[in-house]
Amino acid sequence: MTGILPSYLSGTWWTPADDVDAVDVRDASTGETVARVSAEGADLPGALAHARTVGQAALGALTFHQRALLLKQFALVLTERKEELYELSRHAGSTLRDSLGDVDGGIGVLFTYASKGRRELPNAQVYVDGAPEPLSKDGSFLGQHVYTRLPGVAVQINAFNFPVWGALEKFAPAFLAGVPTLVKPATPTAYIAEAWVRMLVESGLVPDGALQLVSGGVPGLFDHLRLGDLVGFTGSADTAERLRAQAPDGVRFTRETDSINASILGPDAAPGTPEFDAYVSQLVVELTAKAGQKCTAIRRALVPAGAVDALVDAVREKLDRRLVMGDPHADAVTMGPLVSLAQREEVLRQVAALRAAGGRMLLGSMAEPDVVRADGTTGPAPDGAFLAPILVGFDDPATPAVHAIEAFGPVASVLAYDTLAQAADLVAQGGGSLVTSVATHDPAVAVELLSRIGAFNGRVLFLSRENARTSTGHGAPVPHLVHGGPGRAGGGEELGGIRAVLHHMQRTAVQGSPDMLTALTGVWHAGAAADRGGRHPFRKSLAELRVGDQFASPLRAVSLEDIETFAHFTGDTFYAHMDEDAAAANPFFPGRVAHGYLLVSWAAGLFVDPDPGPVLANYGLEALRFVTPVSPGDEIRVTLTAKQITPRETDEYGEVRWDAVIHNQRDEIVAQYDVLTLVAKTAGGTSAAEPADRPAAEAIA
Amino acid sequence: MTGILPSYLSGTWWTPADDVDAVDVRDASTGETVARVSAEGADLPGALAHARTVGQAALGALTFHQRALLLKQFALVLTERKEELYELSRHAGSTLRDSLGDVDGGIGVLFTYASKGRRELPNAQVYVDGAPEPLSKDGSFLGQHVYTRLPGVAVQINAFNFPVWGALEKFAPAFLAGVPTLVKPATPTAYIAEAWVRMLVESGLVPDGALQLVSGGVPGLFDHLRLGDLVGFTGSADTAERLRAQAPDGVRFTRETDSINASILGPDAAPGTPEFDAYVSQLVVELTAKAGQKCTAIRRALVPAGAVDALVDAVREKLDRRLVMGDPHADAVTMGPLVSLAQREEVLRQVAALRAAGGRMLLGSMAEPDVVRADGTTGPAPDGAFLAPILVGFDDPATPAVHAIEAFGPVASVLAYDTLAQAADLVAQGGGSLVTSVATHDPAVAVELLSRIGAFNGRVLFLSRENARTSTGHGAPVPHLVHGGPGRAGGGEELGGIRAVLHHMQRTAVQGSPDMLTALTGVWHAGAAADRGGRHPFRKSLAELRVGDQFASPLRAVSLEDIETFAHFTGDTFYAHMDEDAAAANPFFPGRVAHGYLLVSWAAGLFVDPDPGPVLANYGLEALRFVTPVSPGDEIRVTLTAKQITPRETDEYGEVRWDAVIHNQRDEIVAQYDVLTLVAKTAGGTSAAEPADRPAAEAIA
Repeated sequence: MTGILPSYLSGTWWTPADDVDAVDVRDASTGETVARVSAEGADLPGALAHARTVGQAALGALTFHQRALLLKQFALVLTERKEELYELSRHAGSTLRDSLGDVDGGIGVLFTYASKGRRELPNAQVYVDGAPEPLSKDGSFLGQHVYTRLPGVAVQINAFNFPVWGALEKFAPAFLAGVPTLVKPATPTAYIAEAWVRMLVESGLVPDGALQLVSGGVPGLFDHLRLGDLVGFTGSADTAERLRAQAPDGVRFTRETDSINASILGPDAAPGTPEFDAYVSQLVVELTAKAGQKCTAIRRALVPAGAVDALVDAVREKLDRRLVMGDPHADAVTMGPLVSLAQREEVLRQVAALRAAGGRMLLGSMAEPDVVRADGTTGPAPDGAFLAPILVGFDDPATPAVHAIEAFGPVASVLAYDTLAQAADLVAQGGGSLVTSVATHDPAVAVELLSRIGAFNGRVLFLSRENARTSTGHGAPVPHLVHGGPGRAGGGEELGGIRAVLHHMQRTAVQGSPDMLTALTGVWHAGAAADRGGRHPFRKSLAELRVGDQFASPLRAVSLEDIETFAHFTGDTFYAHMDEDAAAANPFFPGRVAHGYLLVSWAAGLFVDPDPGPVLANYGLEALRFVTPVSPGDEIRVTLTAKQITPRETDEYGEVRWDAVIHNQRDEIVAQYDVLTLVAKTAGGTSAAEPADRPAAEAIA
Repeated sequence: MTGILPSYLSGTWWTPADDVDAVDVRDASTGETVARVSAEGADLPGALAHARTVGQAALGALTFHQRALLLKQFALVLTERKEELYELSRHAGSTLRDSLGDVDGGIGVLFTYASKGRRELPNAQVYVDGAPEPLSKDGSFLGQHVYTRLPGVAVQINAFNFPVWGALEKFAPAFLAGVPTLVKPATPTAYIAEAWVRMLVESGLVPDGALQLVSGGVPGLFDHLRLGDLVGFTGSADTAERLRAQAPDGVRFTRETDSINASILGPDAAPGTPEFDAYVSQLVVELTAKAGQKCTAIRRALVPAGAVDALVDAVREKLDRRLVMGDPHADAVTMGPLVSLAQREEVLRQVAALRAAGGRMLLGSMAEPDVVRADGTTGPAPDGAFLAPILVGFDDPATPAVHAIEAFGPVASVLAYDTLAQAADLVAQGGGSLVTSVATHDPAVAVELLSRIGAFNGRVLFLSRENARTSTGHGAPVPHLVHGGPGRAGGGEELGGIRAVLHHMQRTAVQGSPDMLTALTGVWHAGAAADRGGRHPFRKSLAELRVGDQFASPLRAVSLEDIETFAHFTGDTFYAHMDEDAAAANPFFPGRVAHGYLLVSWAAGLFVDPDPGPVLANYGLEALRFVTPVSPGDEIRVTLTAKQITPRETDEYGEVRWDAVIHNQRDEIVAQYDVLTLVAKTAGGTSAAEPADRPAAEAIA
């Protein structure tokens, strides 16, 4: 008798005292029991309190970069043990390809957030959003948006189809934001979620209280949520609506619900074109991967009238050549069963409803197929939840049932359209989707469709000959891009890089003096106090340098000879520098003026400290604006102020951003910009002995 | 008999056939009827359909910049007639100061969006969000987030207190996004909303269907909303919750509800400090402006234990000196009545509840005060809704009623705190606020408080001696910063510059080839087709230039002599350029290398076309990264591609952003950046005859 799957709550593994309420979870191919699930009697209020106190404190002690590095270590731990996860997943019907999406995909999310967290977030705890807004003429009162983390817990309510990816894609951004997570997996695959949580807990790397797991139902949990908590739900629209109504006011509730996603074969993508082939390949993938049990799978194939038969033939031909259905324990198998017999029943019920609404079976059948068994033999598998791919055709593409019924398995409807406007209207009839894909090589088709369907989709993929092989696919959310969609798809957004981190934080408009905003953000604001005392700031290591440390140069005169010298040296003989009459005729110049690049080059000459020291390199420059032209005879000076200091966790140096302002002899601003440098952490901290990583290349996001 | 206030629906002014359901609206000071309100029988489904067809089409024909210019014209129309709005507002109890907030504040929102729309949005219809995300190693498959407008209508359900600002702050971002608006004002001030809508309609400038008005109730309206529509509600939390439940799934519903805002007197802000005085002045403003009828008003004054008496004395003293309560038609009046007798009843009921919970009257009374009447005489005004400012004190600052009851009038509670942590906990007890202000001159106080209260507030204002005079004030949302707050405050966000425009659009992750993303966004993506044929792109005016037009230079060799020449000319003798051994000891350089500024200066020399032509000026540079060092003997070349073209609506030129990439002789990327230029619309379009506006200065946001 299989024991009950444990939960990980308040820092310990826990199982219920008795198993009267336990649910049996069965192997999708054979019907054998693989796990028993119950969390009856779990102390959920205690787990929430643990997260809000111990978990918040542990994560609050870390910066964004430190959390990001932990995500990388989590990814390495799971990579090391991913074969174990593959093996468990086979019981749920996952082939190796399916596990590459779920297991490796989930690990990939961790790696991506580990990387983005260090590249795109400061090594700090407050995130600055957008530019400062001057709110008074004298500069004494500014506004600045900042994000601080939510003080609660992120509760995940997950779907059965992606027990690894589905949980990690919510966990990674919450963790990076500094918010503890409570994972509640779906029962049919709870044993796979338990496995990865156990691997991370066993690694000893997870901060106390940052990750908890409830292997079972969570009745009453929502009664204990409050302002500052979040719920991330993935599953059916009906359940989502019911749960949202239960969530207390003030709790952020994000829904990702399975939607009736469309895939459009463009009018130009006739049979014989690379786009037609790419469309067919993608449709076959979406029908067979995870046996079609994906929120993002194609449910509606929209094809030009006249291309329906060619499409169905091509899909059939491809399936005939490639499809091997069976128990994923058999090597040759390319498509597994649905997760359970109950799920198969449900899918067949929806197919029947589609047929009752006028649908014709263009491909496949509702019968139980012969399959490859774990031992390699072929035949019926009465205890396995197998279903072959099905295409259903409709005479009237506007049939309401097509756009409302989701058969959550290897099932798609095929609809013919006449015009792009009609295709777009059909997409919209789905009431909001996670994704629509379009196979076209015609930019005009793409532009017209996006303007019509953008508002109905969280993601739109344009498939063409250029990316037929490199596309990540219609059904694959990627961590760099938002996952979610309007309306029927739930109205939420997950992933999308740092956007998802910010979802776990509160945006607050902060108003105050430049000094106060500098203290609150760690970023020097113009007008704040600056320190010109002591050494040149280029002589200070990260250990010594402070935001606000400043260097101010003397004036240097610019002559006509300087301008000519620079022009001839660089080859930049633009008339504004060389021809008095032509320059004066330009609406923006009083006459011949100095090159902008001369000014920033001279500014560097004015502020640079030439001898070896902590400042290692200037790796870039941002937001340069030339404000006032410089005429021959004018003088310029530069003021350089340490604006933001970002030590790296794993290197002996870090980034320093300097505020640079060039003034003329009348104290007018000539130019302003940010100078980006790499600075050693300690005076003797960095030498050529280190690997000569190209930091500048890394710095390019 | 006053006629019924008209509605503006489907392009015409409309009034109900009979007045049996009309509500009488009375002057707040005198009780005289000023308007009668009913929309019984209005064709609301017809109005929604009009917005979705005619309104969407009219706005869809315009770019962001064209819409922004219309907002500016709307602002000028209302500025011209603002005295009429002041006069009407007096009937609702608004003094001139109150109208400066409502009328001029509303006009200010239009001006701000007119300006931000042109500075921060492209002159196009699609908004690009964030950087492109490479999704394949060979560059053939990219991701990019874009925003397209929602296809529906923005329904405003407004509060009575700001009939002009409250509507315009929702209208401006919706209009800029290209989404038509339906305004539903609160009945007590519907006649003021009707006035500004009429002014705009009479101007003839409003695109058909872009602005409609329902002067009265809207029963059943929500039944006709659908995916793509938005509701923006301002009012009480109870009504908000009831309406949210009625809104169909998929309709974006934003709530701004009155919250129990706090204002903290910092521990350092003792009596006698400038911060104490600023705190008192601000509290007096928040008690008296709009007679305290502001969602953002201070409801809880948190002061260090021991400072309560000093605070109450200072407030009393200030009110004694300054307060003149009465009919706003009398010149001397500085504080008007509440909007209605019913509102006064409601406020008194809440004050009674606070007293029942242990509150002591520290200031003011519940009695009807003597006031200045319109004719200048002083005495009782039994038909006016007058109430003098009230402060209520509590022995236990954690008394639950204090943090839950909102008296929506000139009423605040005064609570003593001992530690900053306790003050922060008291703020949090409010369950989420629109704003908290803090009077302190101590950055450590500010940092600790923000980390604790940030997540409970949409805005936090730090008041100090530097901005005591320049602060825009605790109670004043500004269009540059988000307005809204978590939990009790509704959980929504309005304003915040372009953020509010994007709220009316759908963010979609678009995936495809560089060519496709270039076509969809109007921004050239690396890897997309480029055109090197024909003339140098600097010889093309905006009328001729196309995104993707490209110039590629020949190679130019960099010698050690060049590096030394540049070093001595600029003064930049940093050792990495001058000292072989020291440079080689630097972890990032192989030995002496060329200056980064030499490279970009030479690149300009390589790509510039020297003679007068359409390219007028280089006004800046962005996102410069030095990727590969250049050693003596290396050669460099530059490729310049037209990346984004932004013609100005009101000038004879526009901005062109160029993608610049410097390669070396091994085709490695040496540096990359964006060059920002101003280019004439036509070959002969711009001359010195035009006013020599400094475009670069304008370009700085």
